[in-house]
Amino acid sequence: MIPIDHFADFGQAHRMSPERPIVSLTTDFGVSDYYVAALKAVLLRHVPDAQLIDNTHGIGPQDLVAGTIALERAVSIFSPQTVHLAVVDPGVGTERRILLAQVRGQWVVCPDNGLITWTIHRQGGDGDRFFELLWRPQQVSSTFHGRDIMAPAAGMLAAGRDVRTLGRIIVDPVLLNLAPAEPNATMAQIIHFDHFGNASTNMPADHPRLQTARYVAVNGQDLGPLCRTYGDVPDGCPLALIGSSGLLEIAVRNGSAREQLDLALGGAVEVR
Amino acid sequence: MIPIDHFADFGQAHRMSPERPIVSLTTDFGVSDYYVAALKAVLLRHVPDAQLIDNTHGIGPQDLVAGTIALERAVSIFSPQTVHLAVVDPGVGTERRILLAQVRGQWVVCPDNGLITWTIHRQGGDGDRFFELLWRPQQVSSTFHGRDIMAPAAGMLAAGRDVRTLGRIIVDPVLLNLAPAEPNATMAQIIHFDHFGNASTNMPADHPRLQTARYVAVNGQDLGPLCRTYGDVPDGCPLALIGSSGLLEIAVRNGSAREQLDLALGGAVEVR
Amino acid sequence: MIPIDHFADFGQAHRMSPERPIVSLTTDFGVSDYYVAALKAVLLRHVPDAQLIDNTHGIGPQDLVAGTIALERAVSIFSPQTVHLAVVDPGVGTERRILLAQVRGQWVVCPDNGLITWTIHRQGGDGDRFFELLWRPQQVSSTFHGRDIMAPAAGMLAAGRDVRTLGRIIVDPVLLNLAPAEPNATMAQIIHFDHFGNASTNMPADHPRLQTARYVAVNGQDLGPLCRTYGDVPDGCPLALIGSSGLLEIAVRNGSAREQLDLALGGAVEVR
Repeated sequence: MIPIDHFADFGQAHRMSPERPIVSLTTDFGVSDYYVAALKAVLLRHVPDAQLIDNTHGIGPQDLVAGTIALERAVSIFSPQTVHLAVVDPGVGTERRILLAQVRGQWVVCPDNGLITWTIHRQGGDGDRFFELLWRPQQVSSTFHGRDIMAPAAGMLAAGRDVRTLGRIIVDPVLLNLAPAEPNATMAQIIHFDHFGNASTNMPADHPRLQTARYVAVNGQDLGPLCRTYGDVPDGCPLALIGSSGLLEIAVRNGSAREQLDLALGGAVEVR
Repeated sequence: MIPIDHFADFGQAHRMSPERPIVSLTTDFGVSDYYVAALKAVLLRHVPDAQLIDNTHGIGPQDLVAGTIALERAVSIFSPQTVHLAVVDPGVGTERRILLAQVRGQWVVCPDNGLITWTIHRQGGDGDRFFELLWRPQQVSSTFHGRDIMAPAAGMLAAGRDVRTLGRIIVDPVLLNLAPAEPNATMAQIIHFDHFGNASTNMPADHPRLQTARYVAVNGQDLGPLCRTYGDVPDGCPLALIGSSGLLEIAVRNGSAREQLDLALGGAVEVR
Repeated sequence: MIPIDHFADFGQAHRMSPERPIVSLTTDFGVSDYYVAALKAVLLRHVPDAQLIDNTHGIGPQDLVAGTIALERAVSIFSPQTVHLAVVDPGVGTERRILLAQVRGQWVVCPDNGLITWTIHRQGGDGDRFFELLWRPQQVSSTFHGRDIMAPAAGMLAAGRDVRTLGRIIVDPVLLNLAPAEPNATMAQIIHFDHFGNASTNMPADHPRLQTARYVAVNGQDLGPLCRTYGDVPDGCPLALIGSSGLLEIAVRNGSAREQLDLALGGAVEVR
C-alpha cells in the first residue's frame, strides 16, 4: 500500500490554459427558455474557445439575495482570470449602472444593483477594483441587457480587453443590506437554503463566537455543539456544522433541515 | 470619463473559430435522465472540439409548438455554420422523415414533424434549403432516433460533411398551423410563456398594427400604449412591449403576467 | 435519390481527441446551487481543455439506486478514456472508501457505497479493475468530498495520471441489492422511471423469457406481446417494448405509463 502522503502534491492545480478562458454564468433565467443560450452565443463570438460553466440559473425571479450568495460561491471556487457573468436584473431598461468588479484577480460583470454584495464581503481584498461599464453596443434592446450589454462585456474581458477601454473606475458599488455576522454577534441569521434543505447562515467559521460555542439552537431546539460532518449524527438527526462554504450551517443528516426544523430565510440561530 | 461612442466597435463579433463548431440542443428530454448526455456523446465522436450549447431541454413532452418556438430562438442568436439539433419526436420509430434545414447559413437537424415551422416563418430567407436525411447507421434503435440518427447527422454536418452525401433536397417540410399575425390582423395570439410568466404573441414588431397602436388589451384589461421596457411601469403593473425576441409581449413588471392576468396559450391580444 | 447504404460508413466515430478528455458528471446536487460548478472548477484545474458533460444532477437526494442506473447509462454511451465523476454520497465525512473503477476502458470515480453496482452488472467485463483512492489533498472539508477529493482524482485520471500513483487495487467494491433478472425469472422488476414516465425494468433484451414472450402484463393489465416502437400502438395506449437502454420497458404512447398505469418502483412486470 502506498502511503497517502506520497500523493499529496498531485492535487496541485496546473497552470491555467491561456487559450481556454473560463466564463461562469449565474442568472434567474431558468432553463426552459433560450435566454441562457443567448448569453452563450454572444460570449462565444468573443471567446470561441471559452469554457462556459453554468453556476446556476435557478435563482428565483429577481431574487437579489439568492443571486449575490450564488455569485460569491462561484468566485470562491474559480481561479484568477475567470470571468463571472451574473444577471438578476429587475431594473433592466432603467438607468441603473452596470458593474465590472475585479475581485481576487477574477472579473464579475453584473448589474450594479447589489448582486456584488456577498462577493465583496466574503472574497473582497485590497487590490479589488470597481468600474462602471460605459461601453454600449450600436443596437441594444430595452429588455435584455444581459444579452446585449453584459455578455459582450464579459466576452471582451475574457478575451483580454483592457477594462479601462470599457468603463471608468467607481468606488461606490450598490450594496444590499446583507452582511456577515458582526464580531460581537451572538446570533447568526439564515441567509440561504440549498437543494438538500441545508441552511447556511451569515456566521463565518472564524467568527469569535464559534471558537467557544458550547451549543447551537434554532427554533427552540438545542442542536448541541458543532459537529464535524453529517455522519457525526444518526440518520434524520439535526446538527450544526461548518458547511463547505465556510459558514455556520444547520442540517439534518440525509434529510432536509428546512422542512424538518421548519426554518425560514432570515431566521435566527443562537450560538452560545 | 471616456465617451460611450469611443467603445462602439468593440462589440463586433470576432470570426468564428473553424476548429470549434457550435452545436445547440433543443429537446423535450428534461435533465433528469441520460438522454441529453447520449446526444452529446454521439456528437463528440464526430466533433471532439465542439462547443455544445444547451438551448433548452424543458420543452413539454411532445409539445411541438413550444419546441418550434424555442428552436427559432436558438437560430436567431447564433452565427452561420452553427448546427442546431432539435428533438421533439412523438413519431419516433414511424415513417416520418428527418429534416436537414439550412437557414441563414445555419443547419437545423430535427424530425420533419413541424418543429422547423417557426424558424422558417421568422428566420427563413431566399437561400434556405431543405433536405430529407437518407443516411442511416448500421444499427438503429426504434425508440431513440435522436441518439442513433439525428445526433450523428448533426455531428457530421458540424464536422463539415457535404449535405448532399447525407440526403436529398425536398421542398415541402411539414409545417404546423402556427404563423405570424397576418398584416391586416387586429388581434395577436399568445404563443409562448417564458420562465418569468411573460407572454409572447405572434405579432412581430414590424407589424403594421403596432406602428399606430394606441392601446393593447387582454382579457378585457386595457394595458395602454406600448411601453419601451418593464421599468416604464411600477412594480406589479401589467404592460405591453416588444420583447427581446422582436414580438409583441404582455408582461408584469417583476411579476408573472401569466398568473396575474390569467393568460392562456392561444389567447387573443387586442391591438388598436 | 442516393441509396441509403451509400452512407452507411459515415456514422463511424472519429478517433478521440487526445487533447479533449471527456468528463461526465452524475450527482444528486440539483442545479440551483454552486455545487456542480465547484466540481467543474476543480476539474478544469487539471484538464483545462476537457469536455465537461452533465449526465444528470437530478438524482433524488441520497438516492443510490437512481444514481447507479444513471451512471451506467453514461458509461454505456461514452467512449474509452472517458472519466465519469459520480457523487451521491450519504456517507460523506465518514470512513467509506472512494472508488476508482475501470470499466470498458473508461474510468468511474465515486464513493464506494454501491453507486458502481449497475455499471458492473450491465457494462462490466474481464479486464475491469477496481481501486481504492488513497490520494488525499492537503486540505479537505468534511462535508464536500466531491469537490475536495473526487473531482481532483477524476481530473488527474482525465489528465492521464497513472492510477497506481493514486490508490491500491481492491476486489470487493460495495454492491447494492439490485441486479438484472435471473435467467429463469418469470417476472421483471421496475427499477427506473424516466422524465416521460416510461418504466425501465431489470430484464435485459437478451433474457431467455423475452425470446418467447407471448404477453407482458402489469398491475393486472395485459399489454399484449412486445412492440417494436411507441408508434406501434395508438396515442394514449400502453405497450411493452425494449427501450433504448436495452431493457424491457413499459410505456404509453405520447403519455406517462407511470401515471396512467399507476406504476411504482420495485413493482412486478409479468412476462409469459
